[in-house]
Amino acid sequence: MSGAHDAHTRTSATLTLAGARAAVDAALTQAAAIGASMNVAVVDPGGALLAFARMDGAFAGSGDIASDKARTVVSFGGAPTDELYAAIEGEPAVRDGIAGREGVAAFGGGVPVVVDGELVGAVGASGGSAAQDKQVAQAGADAVR
Amino acid sequence: MSGAHDAHTRTSATLTLAGARAAVDAALTQAAAIGASMNVAVVDPGGALLAFARMDGAFAGSGDIASDKARTVVSFGGAPTDELYAAIEGEPAVRDGIAGREGVAAFGGGVPVVVDGELVGAVGASGGSAAQDKQVAQAGADAVR
Amino acid sequence: MSGAHDAHTRTSATLTLAGARAAVDAALTQAAAIGASMNVAVVDPGGALLAFARMDGAFAGSGDIASDKARTVVSFGGAPTDELYAAIEGEPAVRDGIAGREGVAAFGGGVPVVVDGELVGAVGASGGSAAQDKQVAQAGADAVR
Amino acid sequence: MSGAHDAHTRTSATLTLAGARAAVDAALTQAAAIGASMNVAVVDPGGALLAFARMDGAFAGSGDIASDKARTVVSFGGAPTDELYAAIEGEPAVRDGIAGREGVAAFGGGVPVVVDGELVGAVGASGGSAAQDKQVAQAGADAVR
Repeated sequence: MSGAHDAHTRTSATLTLAGARAAVDAALTQAAAIGASMNVAVVDPGGALLAFARMDGAFAGSGDIASDKARTVVSFGGAPTDELYAAIEGEPAVRDGIAGREGVAAFGGGVPVVVDGELVGAVGASGGSAAQDKQVAQAGADAVR
Repeated sequence: MSGAHDAHTRTSATLTLAGARAAVDAALTQAAAIGASMNVAVVDPGGALLAFARMDGAFAGSGDIASDKARTVVSFGGAPTDELYAAIEGEPAVRDGIAGREGVAAFGGGVPVVVDGELVGAVGASGGSAAQDKQVAQAGADAVR
Repeated sequence: MSGAHDAHTRTSATLTLAGARAAVDAALTQAAAIGASMNVAVVDPGGALLAFARMDGAFAGSGDIASDKARTVVSFGGAPTDELYAAIEGEPAVRDGIAGREGVAAFGGGVPVVVDGELVGAVGASGGSAAQDKQVAQAGADAVR
Repeated sequence: MSGAHDAHTRTSATLTLAGARAAVDAALTQAAAIGASMNVAVVDPGGALLAFARMDGAFAGSGDIASDKARTVVSFGGAPTDELYAAIEGEPAVRDGIAGREGVAAFGGGVPVVVDGELVGAVGASGGSAAQDKQVAQAGADAVR
């Protein structure tokens, strides 16, 4: 091998703490607007936590779910978690195998953060219905430009 | 809550999200003041995450350490993590057995949050030296009244 | 917040499979040259595996160690694993707390892969002495341009 | 070792690194031919990793799934992962109990490597549909003679 193609160089966006916190704040605002108590997590492309908040009254057990939803998004190419489930639910073996993995949360409430067409992280929300969780996480992701 | 008919009536302090975020902010301010890049985590008395932030440039791998430090504090009665280590280091079997447990981080940087004499949570910081981590976590805990 | 600084854009290098395999091959060549049987792992900046090889006769139990060494490098800012240990060994509580964490391998044999000044991944080698492991992993990292 | 005095003398086939890499290469060629981006893992009869590759653009989160599929094959007697699922899906308690275990991936994409009638390892592929994953893993296994 010539070595010429060992690494690709490209223009890359990175999610800062300021961006991650803006996402959390927007998600919390949306959750409050619909009267839901949520946990909200933002992760980097490698799945490590950048920012997190649990609203007063939100389930303690939903915190890890929020983080897992966000991590699931970046681990499987950036698909929202509800779309990931929709893609696998037709095959029970795949559905059980992926949705049941430790660290995976493949139900509504995990959405990608995309900047300049690049996946820079994800937001996960948990505590309401799956539809509410998705709405809240999306509000978070939309706050990042 | 009126709480008038609790079997054991007491005034109970609770760490709110506002309090947890004040702790994170104070910790981040202190970390910036000493030029360190940190992960900061705040947990409730059950060890579940309330708020978290990773500063730009901080180690991704220190996030779980910050959370584990905070969780270690509330899991072992509220002692700061460096004091927990000091208490067990004289007995190698105990030291190895506790410091080596999954989910435990028994080195400087985990401090309790105490309100009205009651343990309401803990702050964990990770990314600098143990002394820096403790200083940053303490600044966070001190911000909660 | 204006939102202007939510994400930083920069020129970014990425480690391809071709690059990761070139690293593994160079590491295996070096291991063979010194008569050692090794496991070699290459991870991306998030710690996920890109390429792996176990030489005939190498310890099966060293495979996860090789991966953990590489993951430890990217999790803690890019320091080689022997330098990470050197930085923490003076404080027993920190040493025990970090070196003993699940998923961490803080001894010689994990080295960063840096392209254009950016951490794009890491190589981990395990199976020989720590000095041999480092030499082999370094040969792997040096093969990536 | 001469092996002359083994209690049970047999000719034993072993999967070498060369064999494992031939399997990975054949699997990658097949994945490229069908336009899928995959993670491919090859394990020994004890479930330890021999060789691994993640194609550019493949999901980071599918790496552990590929390894788990291969490990599941050797852990349950050599049955392909889709056949294992078919054997247990009729009993919900067994299906959930096995398919949901940590480290198990009981859906298409794990196939045994058999040489001279002996199970010498397994190939796992993940990243496409279960049918694609199986096709890719099978191409890998077929490359080992």
